[in-house]
Amino acid sequence: MTHAPLSQVKRGKVYGIGLGPGDPELMTLKAARLIREASVIAYPTLAGGASFARSIAAEFIAQGTREIVMDVPMTVARGPAQHAYDQGAARIAEALEAGQDVVVLCEGDPFFYGSFMYLFARLRSDFQVEIVPGVTSVTACAAVAQLPLVARNEVMTVLPAPLEDASLRDKIAGSDTVIVMKLGRHFKRVRALIDTAGLTEKSVYIERATGANEVVKPLKDAPETAPYFSMILIVKGADPWL
Amino acid sequence: MTHAPLSQVKRGKVYGIGLGPGDPELMTLKAARLIREASVIAYPTLAGGASFARSIAAEFIAQGTREIVMDVPMTVARGPAQHAYDQGAARIAEALEAGQDVVVLCEGDPFFYGSFMYLFARLRSDFQVEIVPGVTSVTACAAVAQLPLVARNEVMTVLPAPLEDASLRDKIAGSDTVIVMKLGRHFKRVRALIDTAGLTEKSVYIERATGANEVVKPLKDAPETAPYFSMILIVKGADPWL
Repeated sequence: MTHAPLSQVKRGKVYGIGLGPGDPELMTLKAARLIREASVIAYPTLAGGASFARSIAAEFIAQGTREIVMDVPMTVARGPAQHAYDQGAARIAEALEAGQDVVVLCEGDPFFYGSFMYLFARLRSDFQVEIVPGVTSVTACAAVAQLPLVARNEVMTVLPAPLEDASLRDKIAGSDTVIVMKLGRHFKRVRALIDTAGLTEKSVYIERATGANEVVKPLKDAPETAPYFSMILIVKGADPWL
Repeated sequence: MTHAPLSQVKRGKVYGIGLGPGDPELMTLKAARLIREASVIAYPTLAGGASFARSIAAEFIAQGTREIVMDVPMTVARGPAQHAYDQGAARIAEALEAGQDVVVLCEGDPFFYGSFMYLFARLRSDFQVEIVPGVTSVTACAAVAQLPLVARNEVMTVLPAPLEDASLRDKIAGSDTVIVMKLGRHFKRVRALIDTAGLTEKSVYIERATGANEVVKPLKDAPETAPYFSMILIVKGADPWL
């Protein structure tokens, strides 16, 4: 009878957990369970601010859970942020090597514009990774705006607002339903493009869907400036009567 | 002092509840709570078959819950299905008039290619409606394929497979990430288009993500035929290293 050497601890597993759009009750049962059971959680904070992800998950985090916080600087150059993910991945890897599972908290869904991808890229070749999908801000916005997204054979396109005018214009024209995300400082420009396309009446502006301070307005009544966590839904069709 | 007439019962509210992609644990906490508390639930069945939505929610449905079943015929003409939704909406309206809330079970998300839209269109002007968003098959597929969907300023397009070749070809070319849904009998044609575009190596085929009998394969190894609940993910970019 042989024994594995004591140093061969079974490696832990990384979970990338989607927390949904903001309302903690829109977390999945699986996400809530994994967070409650976790002995180690990890999440990014932006430029030293509070973590939105942690705030969604807060009520499920048990006393004594170890927290690996990755402070990601907001710079135009990518180097400093990449360095923060390198360091975070190294600390997560250490816990995994010691046999602990690590639950990484992700706003929305981990694979939909999520920073979890940066950790996934660093850890996937050495460790077992499981992704728990979450409700995205896209369907959350449609829900709070009471605006069906797509029906039957309609096409839906998701566009980040920082794209160039020509690209935004073409893609807005070529789709039945368009979601423009990451508005922030691009809001005024995107709004003008939508107006020129004659689509303002078919557009809704939403900030922080399902979260505290949610804002839902027809685009024509939207405020002058928009935060990063805001989007415009343009729904040309989605009429289930026809 | 005046009293409201006894006949003015407070009307019930309709909930359109997203159940997520198939794994009951991917239901949101809110969906699970509302189903557990419901005295009336409603859901469609297709052509007399079992309800996929009901099967996801089954463990949360309390004994004695009333079930309004809408049997939707699968015909090319829209009339018969519309008639089934007319009748379903009328039965739901009756419960609402009597002061009962009605929880409508929806696979995935109610407003993302969901049949709930047909009920929403019929009930929204007379009754209060709340939409509870759910995890869509899109992020579920990305999770089980371990394939990040979109990062940074990448564009994502969702295409129903029944679209014409030219439209599919253009939109596949014009987006960083493409999800082709509702494959069914269009699978062979879509596969040929992806192959001609040189994108087979970047494509993954998924059936019933997170559900029983889930299938995840590189597109080149996919089976010959595909059911309706299958999709192809084409991810050209989503590389978080760069």
